[in-house]
Amino acid sequence: MTVLVGRRESFNAAHQLCDPDLSDDENRRLFGKCANLHGHNYVLEVVVAGDVDPATGYVLDLKLLSDLMASQVIRDVDHRNLNTDVPWLKGCVPTAENLAQAIWERLRPELPDGLLRSVRIWETDKNWAQVGDGA
Amino acid sequence: MTVLVGRRESFNAAHQLCDPDLSDDENRRLFGKCANLHGHNYVLEVVVAGDVDPATGYVLDLKLLSDLMASQVIRDVDHRNLNTDVPWLKGCVPTAENLAQAIWERLRPELPDGLLRSVRIWETDKNWAQVGDGA
Amino acid sequence: MTVLVGRRESFNAAHQLCDPDLSDDENRRLFGKCANLHGHNYVLEVVVAGDVDPATGYVLDLKLLSDLMASQVIRDVDHRNLNTDVPWLKGCVPTAENLAQAIWERLRPELPDGLLRSVRIWETDKNWAQVGDGA
Amino acid sequence: MTVLVGRRESFNAAHQLCDPDLSDDENRRLFGKCANLHGHNYVLEVVVAGDVDPATGYVLDLKLLSDLMASQVIRDVDHRNLNTDVPWLKGCVPTAENLAQAIWERLRPELPDGLLRSVRIWETDKNWAQVGDGA
Amino acid sequence: MTVLVGRRESFNAAHQLCDPDLSDDENRRLFGKCANLHGHNYVLEVVVAGDVDPATGYVLDLKLLSDLMASQVIRDVDHRNLNTDVPWLKGCVPTAENLAQAIWERLRPELPDGLLRSVRIWETDKNWAQVGDGA
Amino acid sequence: MTVLVGRRESFNAAHQLCDPDLSDDENRRLFGKCANLHGHNYVLEVVVAGDVDPATGYVLDLKLLSDLMASQVIRDVDHRNLNTDVPWLKGCVPTAENLAQAIWERLRPELPDGLLRSVRIWETDKNWAQVGDGA
Repeated sequence: MTVLVGRRESFNAAHQLCDPDLSDDENRRLFGKCANLHGHNYVLEVVVAGDVDPATGYVLDLKLLSDLMASQVIRDVDHRNLNTDVPWLKGCVPTAENLAQAIWERLRPELPDGLLRSVRIWETDKNWAQVGDGA
Repeated sequence: MTVLVGRRESFNAAHQLCDPDLSDDENRRLFGKCANLHGHNYVLEVVVAGDVDPATGYVLDLKLLSDLMASQVIRDVDHRNLNTDVPWLKGCVPTAENLAQAIWERLRPELPDGLLRSVRIWETDKNWAQVGDGA
Repeated sequence: MTVLVGRRESFNAAHQLCDPDLSDDENRRLFGKCANLHGHNYVLEVVVAGDVDPATGYVLDLKLLSDLMASQVIRDVDHRNLNTDVPWLKGCVPTAENLAQAIWERLRPELPDGLLRSVRIWETDKNWAQVGDGA
Repeated sequence: MTVLVGRRESFNAAHQLCDPDLSDDENRRLFGKCANLHGHNYVLEVVVAGDVDPATGYVLDLKLLSDLMASQVIRDVDHRNLNTDVPWLKGCVPTAENLAQAIWERLRPELPDGLLRSVRIWETDKNWAQVGDGA
Repeated sequence: MTVLVGRRESFNAAHQLCDPDLSDDENRRLFGKCANLHGHNYVLEVVVAGDVDPATGYVLDLKLLSDLMASQVIRDVDHRNLNTDVPWLKGCVPTAENLAQAIWERLRPELPDGLLRSVRIWETDKNWAQVGDGA
Repeated sequence: MTVLVGRRESFNAAHQLCDPDLSDDENRRLFGKCANLHGHNYVLEVVVAGDVDPATGYVLDLKLLSDLMASQVIRDVDHRNLNTDVPWLKGCVPTAENLAQAIWERLRPELPDGLLRSVRIWETDKNWAQVGDGA
């Protein structure tokens, strides 16, 4: 029986939606007020799926998943400007969609094959983006 | 890589679960205390899924999705009686299930083919109904 | 040492802000869209304050407070229309302010003198009204 | 059109992650501080999926689902020690994964074939486990 | 009978805790990681207190309070960098404490004497600052 | 201008409401199902009040408050049985009221005179106890 396990962590970051190759006016046209520098209390939810280890009752020790989220993601983005401070976000507009994709790519190689099910990022209580089928 | 994007909006409405073709007693038997007129702070979550536009980093500009939710749904149901005030709910018992289905039908023709993934309605923090596979 | 204790209960009700002695136009002018029948998932928080009983570690057994909230308030307002169905709200516009005052008057005589500290009603996550100094 | 319906209930329970056949040291190595007796405000979400009954507008009367969750699960686990007090959890380490699986097995035979879609258990706002594809 | 009324609004902003007259090292020593540019989903709660108008059942029409919060505060801080973009925050380190004080000074002259009771700012779910006795 | 600052931390603990000098029947009569061992995701909110330091914009560096809450409270109660594992709770029934009082006594001597304003403990989203006037 496959079991899904979810873990949420949060971080506080600044961002602005702008393409540095475009003019201010063009960025304003594409992104509206989101073209201004602002910020969020982001929430990251990672879901893994697999069999339950009969010895531990775990799909994956959440301490390991939490540590992985910290070392691969949170320590790089927490209390940072996502447009300028994060090497693995360089060259992309830091929308929730692009963040979710970049975090998926950061976590997948660190987890056993097939274990990662989804990565979701909430920017606010009202909007989120997700890679993978989730739960 | 398909990315899912979710947007939540809220509205306040009155409703009662009753079939006007049935007697009060029969409605009471089917719907219990929900047969009385009461109301909720409803939350509507719409999920779309598609490729990310490399120019904007968006699957869909959430401003567009939010405007669509407002014009097709929220302005008709917010601060209204769902049993009597909403033309596109006429003839159905306004359960969460029927609301979710009716809102799906309102939104699907307004969005590019295949983009709409799910529509969920929470009546309270404790119960919801959903059309589509969601996330 | 005085200790405060708070208890929250919820109920779902319909209401509209209107004065039956005024015209529809006048009610619309005073209350805007709130003059329409709509509804809420209300939350009621009651705070009591007093000494801690050394035998039980309680200011007041929350089972008693919860039962009192149920018998004096919740059973009358849950799944009801506040404008028409609640005898002790007759003659007042059912704003959050008037609800909080009416509930205070319902609960105070049922509690030992001086124990009731505040009554708060949330209509939504964004607005509330309160009688008493609370906490 | 298939519609999904979700219902949440909560319970308060104590547990510790330990295998009674292992030494304290071994349990500490496997489970860290979770090997200590502690507790949670658990949230249980059950999702059912099916056609909407045109007479009622329901997939399933939530009163029935709520009663089933109470009789099959909540009354056995609420205000209990999950390691010692629950017959249907005997012999398993009470992780969220094992809880979700055991609750799935408790509920599935009580529901019409194919109706049960998922069972999710939150231990805290930050972690959960789920059986089934959910929503 | 005095009644308190609370209203919450939210905004998304960037900030960093630094004194431009100090060195980077000194700012790092005083403010730790908060000296980096980051951001929050801020929540602003304003509480007013007064008598209930018998004609409307309101202490103050929340539409007026909400409009005042928008015109005096939200439109200036939403999707902005609090360190550089807000004239009425110039010269202060944008801590939650200083924000609450500055917003109090923005709102008090716009409200009838004695009506404003408190202003609270949440930076995250875990920390807030408040001016006034609140509720 | 006095400013209040609040900080929330959480911990997971087991407890049961019982007086070891009473019989099981007597404990059951006094405490109902709470006499059974169970547990909670507790939330602790500490409020301090004072002048804002013009150099930092802080009433108190929240890092210091958070560290104090960790060293004086959280490390002793997190993932513990409050009835047996916490020296400074010995001899009291671990109700929310007694917890709030004991935590007040733990924190007050560690803070500058007059700074501590209130201590609140939530056992669940529905009930809490508080020492001090709070906010």
